[in-house]
Amino acid sequence: METELAELEAQLPAGCLITKPETMEAYRRDRANDPHPGMPLAVVRATSTADVQATVRFAAAHGIPVVPRGAGSSLSGGSTAVDGGIVLSVDRMREITIDPVTRTAFVQPGALNAEVKAAAAEHGCWYPPDPASFEFCSIGGNVATNAGGLCCVKYGVTTDYVLGMTVVLADGRAVTLGGPRLKDVAGLSLTKLFVGSEGTLGIITEVCLRLIPAQRLRTTLVATFPTLDDSTNTVLEITKTMRPSMCEFMDRVTINAVEDDVHMGLDRDAEAMLIIQSDEPAEHAGREIADIERICRDNHAGEVFSTDDPDEGEQFIAARRHAIPAVEKTGTILLEDVGVPVPLLGRLVDGIAEIAGQRDVTIAVMAHAGDGNTHPLVVFDPTDAAQEERAHTAYGEIMDLAMGLGGTITGEHGVGRLKQPWLGAYLGDDVYELNHRIKAALDPQGILNPGVVFNREQAAAAPSAAHDPSASAAAS
Amino acid sequence: METELAELEAQLPAGCLITKPETMEAYRRDRANDPHPGMPLAVVRATSTADVQATVRFAAAHGIPVVPRGAGSSLSGGSTAVDGGIVLSVDRMREITIDPVTRTAFVQPGALNAEVKAAAAEHGCWYPPDPASFEFCSIGGNVATNAGGLCCVKYGVTTDYVLGMTVVLADGRAVTLGGPRLKDVAGLSLTKLFVGSEGTLGIITEVCLRLIPAQRLRTTLVATFPTLDDSTNTVLEITKTMRPSMCEFMDRVTINAVEDDVHMGLDRDAEAMLIIQSDEPAEHAGREIADIERICRDNHAGEVFSTDDPDEGEQFIAARRHAIPAVEKTGTILLEDVGVPVPLLGRLVDGIAEIAGQRDVTIAVMAHAGDGNTHPLVVFDPTDAAQEERAHTAYGEIMDLAMGLGGTITGEHGVGRLKQPWLGAYLGDDVYELNHRIKAALDPQGILNPGVVFNREQAAAAPSAAHDPSASAAAS
Repeated sequence: METELAELEAQLPAGCLITKPETMEAYRRDRANDPHPGMPLAVVRATSTADVQATVRFAAAHGIPVVPRGAGSSLSGGSTAVDGGIVLSVDRMREITIDPVTRTAFVQPGALNAEVKAAAAEHGCWYPPDPASFEFCSIGGNVATNAGGLCCVKYGVTTDYVLGMTVVLADGRAVTLGGPRLKDVAGLSLTKLFVGSEGTLGIITEVCLRLIPAQRLRTTLVATFPTLDDSTNTVLEITKTMRPSMCEFMDRVTINAVEDDVHMGLDRDAEAMLIIQSDEPAEHAGREIADIERICRDNHAGEVFSTDDPDEGEQFIAARRHAIPAVEKTGTILLEDVGVPVPLLGRLVDGIAEIAGQRDVTIAVMAHAGDGNTHPLVVFDPTDAAQEERAHTAYGEIMDLAMGLGGTITGEHGVGRLKQPWLGAYLGDDVYELNHRIKAALDPQGILNPGVVFNREQAAAAPSAAHDPSASAAAS
Repeated sequence: METELAELEAQLPAGCLITKPETMEAYRRDRANDPHPGMPLAVVRATSTADVQATVRFAAAHGIPVVPRGAGSSLSGGSTAVDGGIVLSVDRMREITIDPVTRTAFVQPGALNAEVKAAAAEHGCWYPPDPASFEFCSIGGNVATNAGGLCCVKYGVTTDYVLGMTVVLADGRAVTLGGPRLKDVAGLSLTKLFVGSEGTLGIITEVCLRLIPAQRLRTTLVATFPTLDDSTNTVLEITKTMRPSMCEFMDRVTINAVEDDVHMGLDRDAEAMLIIQSDEPAEHAGREIADIERICRDNHAGEVFSTDDPDEGEQFIAARRHAIPAVEKTGTILLEDVGVPVPLLGRLVDGIAEIAGQRDVTIAVMAHAGDGNTHPLVVFDPTDAAQEERAHTAYGEIMDLAMGLGGTITGEHGVGRLKQPWLGAYLGDDVYELNHRIKAALDPQGILNPGVVFNREQAAAAPSAAHDPSASAAAS
């Protein structure tokens, strides 16, 4: 393969192709920390759409898997390397062009979410989606996973801001879908199909994002609760009539992990804490926050604190964003991303507490409560094999619990490699087969991010009769 | 075929299958008024998902085209009957179930948009999308075309509110995609793919819609302008810093057609009129409307009038909604739906005026100005063959103009049969071929709404080499 790789190298700018094992090491794992990542054949650090095309054409010609990679911050193993594949990193493709008149941004996929926000802000514009990892996750990854975040409860998820993109298909062709038009229904909604496709249908090399006018100042309210039910009832009552711009939840384990780490004076005895923001105009925000405070108190809140000082508010948000790293310091974690219809949030959270008790493991729960999207973190000591096994059991049980409540196995992180084994059960045979049909139509060789979303063997074979469940399901 | 139809009839509730030509007549045309609609083999008025499945299975077994039909209000010929096909009407499927706690609606496709709004309002909830035809268009059609409307400028289009659906596939299987979860990234975004697919990939038999808390009271401002540029500059300046909940435009021809019809005392000499709403909280709305008024005056507005009286405001909106029927009274019309990036709205509107002059035809322009989405109506006298020909020339030229400005041939009405001939040029060979690949994967027989979006012959043959442009385009 060395001769062939030399051919590819000749088509790329100097230094873009990496085959040195020590240098490739940094590109094997993502933030899901797979203990057994693949050993790639090569890493390509693309600088342009043309570089991506050359790489994909090479891979297609030789039947080599391609794992696209943005900032490597996937929490579900979406950019873990596979043996003998090419890791196609876009971390050098970071150009951002803001058009403040059209209120759009053209962004290369390696640009960080925070960089897009900052560039937009320079022009009085705002790019809302804000994963907790916004300071170190890439826009390409955000679009590939349809990432969520904290402000989704009012402002929606990534797909709501993607107007168009340039994408390199599995045969190396580059196509441009959509563009800076707020409404466009000419042809199938292919832009929306590629959003959230986790690099399995094509490789995004530029996105056109919708921006909106700058967010107003936020008022932040923090409240603690003596029971989980009190906190989830509060969430339901608030979202029934109001549209807070943030509605986050942390349970007692999470509160304590954060407090251990940053010493903010959080109430360690509270069973739950909510962090809620309003970005309504000043006069109205005051009234809205007063209403929210009343609802919190009606639901037995202990402390309730609110502030319209942006820095003071930001401290609490920072505590919430810090929750995953803080819990990670207490042990090895298995990170969930289950979501349920908002009214069932209480049953989900209670059920997780039960699983923690039954399996005798620690589970920290934080949530984008207003969306019903939770991140239970199952914590275990990797030197205790029995505990590790119980943790893995609990991890599966939490997904089963969410599905039983009409919920999803992943609300915003993506299926990746970690949740792939659960996807078939979640979708059911017919819908899973429909996913495979689209995959087979767009990536017939199955070279794009194999093992992500689609089972590696099924993806390669679909939609052949051997793996096509439609025959048995046709009677449904 | 009579024996076979009897078999289908036996599987449907009594009276669902119609073959009497006089009764079928009402199901041949939609609001695009095709002068030569097809003569269907039969009309099925389905009452359930099972009825739709039985019909599609029958059609699949016999290779018969199926034209899905909601309220028949398509402006692009999306539900015009085809010869020898089955018109599958869902006008009897109108159940609406509101869940005010989850803030979702489960709706059968035949329910009218206005009925969904009303049912939601009973529970203090709001379903925002509001096509001008909301009183007589169906939710199924709205989802199939990803319909827009007046409030999109702040609240987005139909796809932003579709959380899930039940859809009958081309082989008769029914699948449920998504559901009442605000975030769900498990598997490809199939829900979003079916939204806007115009009945070419499957037949929607139920949708799960996201609702939000009731809209606040609106303040309405109406302003007239001495030139088109003054009005479009005003739009740009407003949307740069504010998020009005409506920003509509009517040109002089439209103003006069409405005034002829309803005598509201509109300024017949104005070149343009804007109707703008703010739904900000009361104190803030006052300030926002004052800012908007200042911007209007800075841009040479003649009259500027504002009101926070809902009924008075509604009169102006009603005038805007009445614009198409009013212009229709002045002659036969060809209705456009072109859109451009918002900053190019002025150039589009000016260019349309030029085309009207060059072709010596009347063109009335109304627009969802804040979205850059316009509805030029080319008016002609059907008894004047030369004028009719010039009108058709102008119709094509307007789409060419929009494409030249980086715009789309359809912003919210759909491609249907009327704009199908322009779609290939708009999308380009590669993207159009990508559309065909999805179509072939999901409807290999090409029985679903043939002639809509896809050229009838190409759709049937794709992705065969004869119509696959990928070979020649692979070098792109």
